Amino acid sequence: MSENSEAPIRGNFERVTRGPFEGWWKWSGKDPFEDGTGPFFVTRDERGIVTGFMPEQKNLNGHGIVHGGALMTFADFSLFMVAASNGDEVTGVTVTLNCEFVSGAQAGEMLTSRGELVRAGGSLVFARGTIFCGETPVLSYSGTIKRARRVSH
Amino acid sequence: MSENSEAPIRGNFERVTRGPFEGWWKWSGKDPFEDGTGPFFVTRDERGIVTGFMPEQKNLNGHGIVHGGALMTFADFSLFMVAASNGDEVTGVTVTLNCEFVSGAQAGEMLTSRGELVRAGGSLVFARGTIFCGETPVLSYSGTIKRARRVSH
Repeated sequence: MSENSEAPIRGNFERVTRGPFEGWWKWSGKDPFEDGTGPFFVTRDERGIVTGFMPEQKNLNGHGIVHGGALMTFADFSLFMVAASNGDEVTGVTVTLNCEFVSGAQAGEMLTSRGELVRAGGSLVFARGTIFCGETPVLSYSGTIKRARRVSH
Repeated sequence: MSENSEAPIRGNFERVTRGPFEGWWKWSGKDPFEDGTGPFFVTRDERGIVTGFMPEQKNLNGHGIVHGGALMTFADFSLFMVAASNGDEVTGVTVTLNCEFVSGAQAGEMLTSRGELVRAGGSLVFARGTIFCGETPVLSYSGTIKRARRVSH
């Protein structure tokens, strides 16, 4: 996969050409659980990194609203995108993720998230953010990523 | 759906009749995201409530290990089962869920979780637990459930 110099984050992203996220970007790597739960999208505007997710019927829980597990999976994706706010993709694993479920979300309503890169250290990256439906906060999250050791090749 | 008096939790659970979780129980309600991510199972032994999950290829992330979102979805299910330690199903929504990812998990290796009901209040239930692969801790979680208002009918 080649990097796309227009992408909001330096890494493997491809432009979305149709649907409600047309013009946004999708990570072009293979992540079966994220692709099965989402897909999730990312763009950058004058205020910074924005991520997006359109929940479907498959994402619902027994109450008929979006399952917390689906929201946390989107929060985890968003954590990595916010962590890349300086422009470089962050490769690593989530070490902690704390979530507050502020309000429920419905299928068919677009969710977006913005956040803040708290600190990008050499081994740990700290970030936090909020998932919104329109102007309504849905989930508040904060997390820590441990960077993968770089393989020289 | 009728309650099964043998189930580890009073509620809508059906006995599993085949596979690695034969003899365990599955919630018989409809939860598209949980069923798509899991299925997840529950039983009770002399030490208390145990939940189980066998991750598959569909649960993996880009590193080829089980995605944090799948583990958090299992943690959320386990939170509700641990919250029902006194024997009564807890109906409500997750308000907070905090997760520490202690080690990675592989597809095809059975995960189990045990936990502790910290406090079952009238409106909020506090619980915590650990997901294990064998004896190895994989994820440590703590969370709060807000009970659904009871509908009189």
